[in-house]
Amino acid sequence: MAQIPRGTRDFLPDEMQKRTYLREVFEKVFCSFGYREVQTPTFEQLELFTAKSGEGIIDELYDFVDKGDRKLALRPELTAPVMRMYVDSLQMEPKPLKLFYFGNCFRYDRPQKGRYREFWQLGCELIGTESECAIAELIALAYSSLKAAGLKKIELNIGDLKIIKALFRRLGLSDEQVKYVMPLLDKECFDDVRTYLLEQDFSESEVGVVVEALQSSDMKMLKEFLIKDDEAIAELEFVESVLKILKDDFAVEEFSVRMSIVRGLDYYSGVVFEIHAPVLGAEKQICGGGMYELVSLFGGRETPTSGFAIGFDRSLLALESEGFEFPISGLDVYVIPVGAEMISPCISLVHSLRLKGLCVDFDMMNRGVGKALKYANTKNAKKVLILGPRELEEGVVTMRNMADGAQSSVPLDAVYSSLS
Amino acid sequence: MAQIPRGTRDFLPDEMQKRTYLREVFEKVFCSFGYREVQTPTFEQLELFTAKSGEGIIDELYDFVDKGDRKLALRPELTAPVMRMYVDSLQMEPKPLKLFYFGNCFRYDRPQKGRYREFWQLGCELIGTESECAIAELIALAYSSLKAAGLKKIELNIGDLKIIKALFRRLGLSDEQVKYVMPLLDKECFDDVRTYLLEQDFSESEVGVVVEALQSSDMKMLKEFLIKDDEAIAELEFVESVLKILKDDFAVEEFSVRMSIVRGLDYYSGVVFEIHAPVLGAEKQICGGGMYELVSLFGGRETPTSGFAIGFDRSLLALESEGFEFPISGLDVYVIPVGAEMISPCISLVHSLRLKGLCVDFDMMNRGVGKALKYANTKNAKKVLILGPRELEEGVVTMRNMADGAQSSVPLDAVYSSLS
Repeated sequence: MAQIPRGTRDFLPDEMQKRTYLREVFEKVFCSFGYREVQTPTFEQLELFTAKSGEGIIDELYDFVDKGDRKLALRPELTAPVMRMYVDSLQMEPKPLKLFYFGNCFRYDRPQKGRYREFWQLGCELIGTESECAIAELIALAYSSLKAAGLKKIELNIGDLKIIKALFRRLGLSDEQVKYVMPLLDKECFDDVRTYLLEQDFSESEVGVVVEALQSSDMKMLKEFLIKDDEAIAELEFVESVLKILKDDFAVEEFSVRMSIVRGLDYYSGVVFEIHAPVLGAEKQICGGGMYELVSLFGGRETPTSGFAIGFDRSLLALESEGFEFPISGLDVYVIPVGAEMISPCISLVHSLRLKGLCVDFDMMNRGVGKALKYANTKNAKKVLILGPRELEEGVVTMRNMADGAQSSVPLDAVYSSLS
Repeated sequence: MAQIPRGTRDFLPDEMQKRTYLREVFEKVFCSFGYREVQTPTFEQLELFTAKSGEGIIDELYDFVDKGDRKLALRPELTAPVMRMYVDSLQMEPKPLKLFYFGNCFRYDRPQKGRYREFWQLGCELIGTESECAIAELIALAYSSLKAAGLKKIELNIGDLKIIKALFRRLGLSDEQVKYVMPLLDKECFDDVRTYLLEQDFSESEVGVVVEALQSSDMKMLKEFLIKDDEAIAELEFVESVLKILKDDFAVEEFSVRMSIVRGLDYYSGVVFEIHAPVLGAEKQICGGGMYELVSLFGGRETPTSGFAIGFDRSLLALESEGFEFPISGLDVYVIPVGAEMISPCISLVHSLRLKGLCVDFDMMNRGVGKALKYANTKNAKKVLILGPRELEEGVVTMRNMADGAQSSVPLDAVYSSLS
């Protein structure tokens, strides 16, 4: 019979419960920061993604032609769709606009640990402001939500594309040369950057300074390197303000400045950041974001935008790898009728407890107390209620505490109050 | 620029909030009945859906060939994927197994009011029991969840495919004739059923009896029609038990017996049911389900299965059409710094309130109290806190109640307690 498609997953109840826990934590933090959820279609016109990322992205997409000859693609990420939606429907909204999303994305990629063909992302987009405190808050939000989820060790790295560009400007790199260097920088292959730049006949001293600056986390040193570049100095001061607010006001203590953070150079601009979960080893990036420009590309009126995306599957994997104990919820109550005649009064009891908001189930198969107790155990029932003819006559029910096996007799009209 | 694909929708924050409200109500009720959530991939092998519904379904599917030449399709419904998952991974689980899902489905269909190319379904599957109380509970769950969502007027109709088949058996209809009659029955075109059967040379009196029985809601009358058919009588008694439990124990008072409920004849068998929201007019069905057989078709060991699916978009439309007042949640607090120097202490205040679980935002654009108050209003802020240099010096903040405009001075360390 039909197999599950390669690179995709089923989520069984226990796994799904973990995912729901994590999604709800993230959403709660996003809401507490004033973000509101939006949702876009699972597929978009193919040209939306090629406009953002170039034709090369088609190789990684699930693209197809629909029965009306439209070129469509399952979304590989959610920033482009959310920006398309913003341009279509939200340009007139009061600014700043804070939007978050949780959704599945698709990439035709070689499946491997932590990489799937259908995967989930959540993220936030901040539209209409690029003040220091806005950018600091955005970074604080990404960091806080991952901490709130329960991750013990995460690393926040902050960079700035305008500063990287200023360093390249100082050297006089062509656009083509920048394109070659960026992927090397992204992988922190500084030696390869140096070798390449020397091959391109830049002076050894200048290359030395720039490569040193690219590796520097020291804002003062960066300022010295760029002292003659007013634009770069202004940007460095902007970054300093952001970092100060992040640390002093949002209480984010741990972060590093890294000029090797590149992201998508085509549309990112200014402050960028990444968060890693070292427990994941090589595939440790769980969040990336920054300031970007996409609105005008999609036909909207220019407005500052920034945002981040969190890899949901990798965040979950990181929690599991750190040994996080996910809250387990089972049945509050399982009710066992002793004999077919007891089914009807049991259902009435079940019905009344459910109306009070409890998770309740009962033995619908009339299979005897022993087997039913075993079943209740597999469902993590906290309490079991056993109702036989004698109990019914006396107006009581036997209540069994599944943690220690203790049993007691409880009046039928006092069951709910005895449960808490 | 790229338009949103035809027949799909963006969900803006207000709409999304309604959807989240409705999803959470459904999920809460499903959980209270002991159901646990599962999730399957957005696309499956095409053959999964043709195995269930025949090659004809391809015309309505988003089917495509992936870069590895696999024939895939975006799921048009979720019962087949969930059953595929059950066969793959859950056959050894203790029975009964109660699973629910919430997911998007896709149909290449002519878009119209309430019908979209991407739409959402939620539903429950009950695996491993077909006792009277289990089937009654399933129907009660569908009904209760729609009532819990806030729908005022819904109609529950219950039928039985075994009884319809017994009536056709009594008449001696061939499979081909049954196939012709079923769609007419589904549309309650009883006159057309009669005309067709008479054309097929069945006796006028027999056709009269069968067509009357098909229109009957009276279990006693149905029993009389089928008195010589032991299998049908047993099924009628089963239905009677289900209805009794539904009414007496699950307190579902309002329902009708309708033998015109057909559903997918290929895999449904026994009790079937539908729930309508009359406020929706012609497209009023919002839920359908019953007992079905798919496990062995998908290569699993035979076990009883039943379930239902709720049309999420139509349920929402029905609520809106009934004038349901969805809960509106805005910001708990909006904080306005008076002047750039106040931003830092404001963020500290915002940060502390967020840590307590409140939804809080602040003016990140330093645009003056008047404009910031207007913005707070568009975000449905309940309270606004205004912090200027004088207030900071005195260790207080001005608290404005946005409902009535009342303002008071509150000590900074008593803000949280003053909010509730």
